[in-house]
Amino acid sequence: MSSTFGEHFRVTTFGESHGAGIGAVIDGCPPGMELDEADIQGQLDRRRPGTGPLVTTRSESDRVEILSGTENGITLGSPIALLVRNADAKPADYAAAAGGPRPSHADFPYREKYGLLSAGGGGRSSARETLGRVAAGAVAGKVLRLAWGIEIVAWVSSIENVDAPGSDMDTLTRELVDRSPCRCPDPAASALMVAAIEAAKADKDSVGGIVSCACRCVPAGWGEPVFGKLDALLAHAMLSIPAVRGFELGSGFAASRMRGSAHNDAFVAQDGRLRAATNRAGGSLGGVSSGETVWFRVAFKPTPTIGRPQETAGWDGGPMTLESRGRHDPCVAIRAVPVVEAMAAIALLDLAFAQESRLAVAGRAGRRHGLI
Amino acid sequence: MSSTFGEHFRVTTFGESHGAGIGAVIDGCPPGMELDEADIQGQLDRRRPGTGPLVTTRSESDRVEILSGTENGITLGSPIALLVRNADAKPADYAAAAGGPRPSHADFPYREKYGLLSAGGGGRSSARETLGRVAAGAVAGKVLRLAWGIEIVAWVSSIENVDAPGSDMDTLTRELVDRSPCRCPDPAASALMVAAIEAAKADKDSVGGIVSCACRCVPAGWGEPVFGKLDALLAHAMLSIPAVRGFELGSGFAASRMRGSAHNDAFVAQDGRLRAATNRAGGSLGGVSSGETVWFRVAFKPTPTIGRPQETAGWDGGPMTLESRGRHDPCVAIRAVPVVEAMAAIALLDLAFAQESRLAVAGRAGRRHGLI
Amino acid sequence: MSSTFGEHFRVTTFGESHGAGIGAVIDGCPPGMELDEADIQGQLDRRRPGTGPLVTTRSESDRVEILSGTENGITLGSPIALLVRNADAKPADYAAAAGGPRPSHADFPYREKYGLLSAGGGGRSSARETLGRVAAGAVAGKVLRLAWGIEIVAWVSSIENVDAPGSDMDTLTRELVDRSPCRCPDPAASALMVAAIEAAKADKDSVGGIVSCACRCVPAGWGEPVFGKLDALLAHAMLSIPAVRGFELGSGFAASRMRGSAHNDAFVAQDGRLRAATNRAGGSLGGVSSGETVWFRVAFKPTPTIGRPQETAGWDGGPMTLESRGRHDPCVAIRAVPVVEAMAAIALLDLAFAQESRLAVAGRAGRRHGLI
Amino acid sequence: MSSTFGEHFRVTTFGESHGAGIGAVIDGCPPGMELDEADIQGQLDRRRPGTGPLVTTRSESDRVEILSGTENGITLGSPIALLVRNADAKPADYAAAAGGPRPSHADFPYREKYGLLSAGGGGRSSARETLGRVAAGAVAGKVLRLAWGIEIVAWVSSIENVDAPGSDMDTLTRELVDRSPCRCPDPAASALMVAAIEAAKADKDSVGGIVSCACRCVPAGWGEPVFGKLDALLAHAMLSIPAVRGFELGSGFAASRMRGSAHNDAFVAQDGRLRAATNRAGGSLGGVSSGETVWFRVAFKPTPTIGRPQETAGWDGGPMTLESRGRHDPCVAIRAVPVVEAMAAIALLDLAFAQESRLAVAGRAGRRHGLI
Repeated sequence: MSSTFGEHFRVTTFGESHGAGIGAVIDGCPPGMELDEADIQGQLDRRRPGTGPLVTTRSESDRVEILSGTENGITLGSPIALLVRNADAKPADYAAAAGGPRPSHADFPYREKYGLLSAGGGGRSSARETLGRVAAGAVAGKVLRLAWGIEIVAWVSSIENVDAPGSDMDTLTRELVDRSPCRCPDPAASALMVAAIEAAKADKDSVGGIVSCACRCVPAGWGEPVFGKLDALLAHAMLSIPAVRGFELGSGFAASRMRGSAHNDAFVAQDGRLRAATNRAGGSLGGVSSGETVWFRVAFKPTPTIGRPQETAGWDGGPMTLESRGRHDPCVAIRAVPVVEAMAAIALLDLAFAQESRLAVAGRAGRRHGLI
Repeated sequence: MSSTFGEHFRVTTFGESHGAGIGAVIDGCPPGMELDEADIQGQLDRRRPGTGPLVTTRSESDRVEILSGTENGITLGSPIALLVRNADAKPADYAAAAGGPRPSHADFPYREKYGLLSAGGGGRSSARETLGRVAAGAVAGKVLRLAWGIEIVAWVSSIENVDAPGSDMDTLTRELVDRSPCRCPDPAASALMVAAIEAAKADKDSVGGIVSCACRCVPAGWGEPVFGKLDALLAHAMLSIPAVRGFELGSGFAASRMRGSAHNDAFVAQDGRLRAATNRAGGSLGGVSSGETVWFRVAFKPTPTIGRPQETAGWDGGPMTLESRGRHDPCVAIRAVPVVEAMAAIALLDLAFAQESRLAVAGRAGRRHGLI
Repeated sequence: MSSTFGEHFRVTTFGESHGAGIGAVIDGCPPGMELDEADIQGQLDRRRPGTGPLVTTRSESDRVEILSGTENGITLGSPIALLVRNADAKPADYAAAAGGPRPSHADFPYREKYGLLSAGGGGRSSARETLGRVAAGAVAGKVLRLAWGIEIVAWVSSIENVDAPGSDMDTLTRELVDRSPCRCPDPAASALMVAAIEAAKADKDSVGGIVSCACRCVPAGWGEPVFGKLDALLAHAMLSIPAVRGFELGSGFAASRMRGSAHNDAFVAQDGRLRAATNRAGGSLGGVSSGETVWFRVAFKPTPTIGRPQETAGWDGGPMTLESRGRHDPCVAIRAVPVVEAMAAIALLDLAFAQESRLAVAGRAGRRHGLI
Repeated sequence: MSSTFGEHFRVTTFGESHGAGIGAVIDGCPPGMELDEADIQGQLDRRRPGTGPLVTTRSESDRVEILSGTENGITLGSPIALLVRNADAKPADYAAAAGGPRPSHADFPYREKYGLLSAGGGGRSSARETLGRVAAGAVAGKVLRLAWGIEIVAWVSSIENVDAPGSDMDTLTRELVDRSPCRCPDPAASALMVAAIEAAKADKDSVGGIVSCACRCVPAGWGEPVFGKLDALLAHAMLSIPAVRGFELGSGFAASRMRGSAHNDAFVAQDGRLRAATNRAGGSLGGVSSGETVWFRVAFKPTPTIGRPQETAGWDGGPMTLESRGRHDPCVAIRAVPVVEAMAAIALLDLAFAQESRLAVAGRAGRRHGLI
């Protein structure tokens, strides 16, 4: 596990925030597909800090280079290595960490785990680590789109105490989402969210938020019971993103407060096939996609790095006051939107390969169909 | 993936609800440990339906047999195969399924996936599948207890709209939990929960609930960034359990509504080592255990099988009314308590092996310590 | 790894020679295929000791039971658990082992590894462990036969110093092989081999041998460069069989003595497609099947358990004379024939799934073909 | 599998011969170890073609860059990405391939597998692919040396029909091996081998050879029965190297011609512990290291690219004469020496982690020792 996600479409990421570069190796991409840097750069740019008031001002150009796996813009079927060079590293900004572990950061357990701690920032616990995921996810997303017409769109549905009303998951696009500076497609909620973030920023504080995600046109049958269930892989993928604290599919935690008669999704016939009349299930039943939109929500904690002084303890146990001067986002959920999309794409494509091989082999072996 | 969980301590489960038996093969159990059926049977009995009004009346004796991996009650280090024979199977009870897919059950996507559907019940989507997990989890739990003194206790913290106040995670035991018929250690809340379940049952309906879980004495340093983070593995493990719709670690979704200054856990020195003054992090920072209690919550949807008639569509697309006469629990969360404990134990032990090998090899290689 | 082989078609084996039973769990078998015990029992019987002079007289009935994964004789797509109960265990026969590690047996390193040693025989190092492989291999073999018409036939091609001339790999069948008491399809060589084995047996000694194997009708394109090459997986599979010391594909070690001009296989057109005029490559180029028969050879050492007294050292380091009275085969290669077939089938089917999913996904993604 | 080897110390390689670069990502390297490019460059230089008459004249500078996983020359415990940029690529040299598949090359099955073929050379089937292995193997080798004092030395023991007499595996060093232009430490045999290669070269032909390898100071107990046996992993590792056709451990194929009484290795007490009086087993019993030197042999076929014209068929099936003008080694075994060492190191270290975690966890769980 560790740095590799997936069994069929496998993504291995590498890179620290302040080393030579960040990247990923994709193993299992189908051959014969057009792919160049432009297919990837767009999502990297969405992850990159912009110029608005809501994100860090660290300038990261983050140009991706395809090191292998393509020739003349066509995938070969061999591993695709992607590299983004680091630049503008200012380890000194993080030097304060040397005095003590930053509260709610990974400094403490990482030093316990590895026996040492980089003086130059968060290393693999940095949000910058997600660059490799976004690059690989862009490739996965292209395969899903070409092969099944799948569209994955994530957006900010809640920030601090501002909730956006339910968005129309059938029509939402990334373009619509990006019209909002905080990636909330509801204009009224977006304005309130921006105000909440600016208020927190003025207080040298940070806020948490929720990212919702919809995956349209996922065929029925994806998900490998019992430990490779669609729900389980998505949860795994999302909880591996920095700062994520929770995951819920479809009705999620609200389902725990409902009765079965109110929660069950009845079936109806539509266009010659069975559909769910409602989709509280979030597009997955028994851990297998049902053919309905797969939708879920991911909870992000407030950025732990804040400008306000914090009373805590130093490495030596003595009391200390920590004041961060490093650049940071007041709300990580906004830049996390393409990360959520990337991890969803990687998880879905991995399951797609599993199901495709089952169908193909069973078909060749002359399988029986129906109820037995 | 599919039927195997874990990379170092690997559990492979097998078995349908109405076949010859259910079981698991554990690969990677340490040798030289005392282990016999009695170590496993206790948790199986906790998962088994009892005689109270709140659980199904299907009588499952569920005796486990150790087929391999031990000799004279000592583990050999080889795979431990565990088998529970099925008995009292009544496939006829489920025959109604043949008319159409049961709403919010796995029938529909499973037939899409595999091309066929067992007439004899839910197969691998049945709650009975969790027997193999509980058996394997009992072994994992014993290793964790012997090697690190880890105690894992889960309990019902919410049913329908009844929430139990926060329990004292430091002192809670399985015995205390089992004093309540619905496994809620708070007596007042327990009484209300029982009433809620009975009301639902009287209405031929079902209710959802939340299971909380605390893992005490987990050492700092467990969790393998970035894709084997502790949070990610726990989420994966929990979302693989039937009927689970959500997972949150520590403050979870509530963190999304907080500011950093209120959410951060400061460090304090205690007994010569750094501790977290609060534990909103749920015992994990950056995906690695911090040495504090690992705690999380798991949302279960209401049992989809209900006695009330449901309007839905048959396999042929025509409208039909489904009335279930099968035995079922009105609230699956209660019996899920040992399942949550089992999956937590399996996930934790897998990460323990990874960290132990790192420590051992790095130690032999003469690693440097400290800040670099 | 350890007890699981394969990534797509995964076989997990369990069981010691003197515990309750031996078995396997198959994960990833295609659904909708007819399968019952009779499909498996035949190969188990071929592995079982017979009544002739060349094999051990231990009577093993070895009846397999399918515990899960089928219903009404049809595979469900869920894990297939297979169990063979042990019987006629006589641990006392092996008690002599307690005095010291048997030369060229696993006793010594197993005790070093696990810290303990079963008094009741070789445990997982026993040849009986291969029962689980043969059972799972029979299922894999059926899938390969149904889906691609693949036939896998192994035979004894050498015993001690007797070599059989090259057999016709295009027409050899298991029935033809079994006509020989030592599974050598060449009658003259077979007679000499039987004499060699009987001479060794009369001397209370044992002999080594070589098993050859041909896999016909393997499509071109199987094998996953660079670490899942067909050659690599077959080598892995074969060297995991007890008593195997060597593996060679096609021309094998002889290739090291040849020049390129003599070794290269030219291409010729035949029936509208490219074929290899010769097949020194053993059906694999660059680790990927070429469409020609995959053939290889596996070297077995002489059975280490012999009736002759051996001077060795006891656990305490003191000199001792070891005299074995346990039942044993004078030549393990004969009973290994179905084991080699089983492991070949498992390895091939695993690679088949990988290639089928690539083809399917690339096809859906609209791949380009040809030279780029 | 595919591009990743290992479960605990995982190496993922990437890169084609004529793309931007070749490299590897190492996941699981212990933290706190000194590591810089100089630790890796030495083995890369040994793999690189030199100036002598026996190797290709393609100039490959092959400078490695560490992209991640270290800081200030110390490993962090995070993934170590290694990159070697390609230079001096001359795809035109390979353009002849477009006319038809080169005999005994991977062109044909690769096009069948991926549906397309790079016009620019062998891609992942090129010997250049091994650069990533050698780089990663150098890191693995350093860990093995620091942690256990393990030394891995490979050498050429046979070329065409010239065999070197047995070398003293206890004292052989890489320096001694490199004194010979064909890496055969026996001066007389070396001279004959050089003559054989030059004769083949003069004939525009190529020759095969055998590489032997000794791994000294491997502790007893490494190897994970039954599918992660030491023998199986080594065989897998070796057969994944381009041009390898066979593998044998210890006595290997010769064992198949011996009797048990002559083949068994007796135990003797030495320096207070049990040792094998002879080591025909090659340092592995039952798939687990015995504490003796692990030694094995790897057969390489003659380079398929030869200067002589070859009669074969083109992609269209028509007869064609292929004449190669590309640069190539007349004997790949010489440059394969560091590749064999690299793959041996990677396989051994992976097994080391597995055993270390077993020992650590079993020790904490208070395991019982001895005979049971």
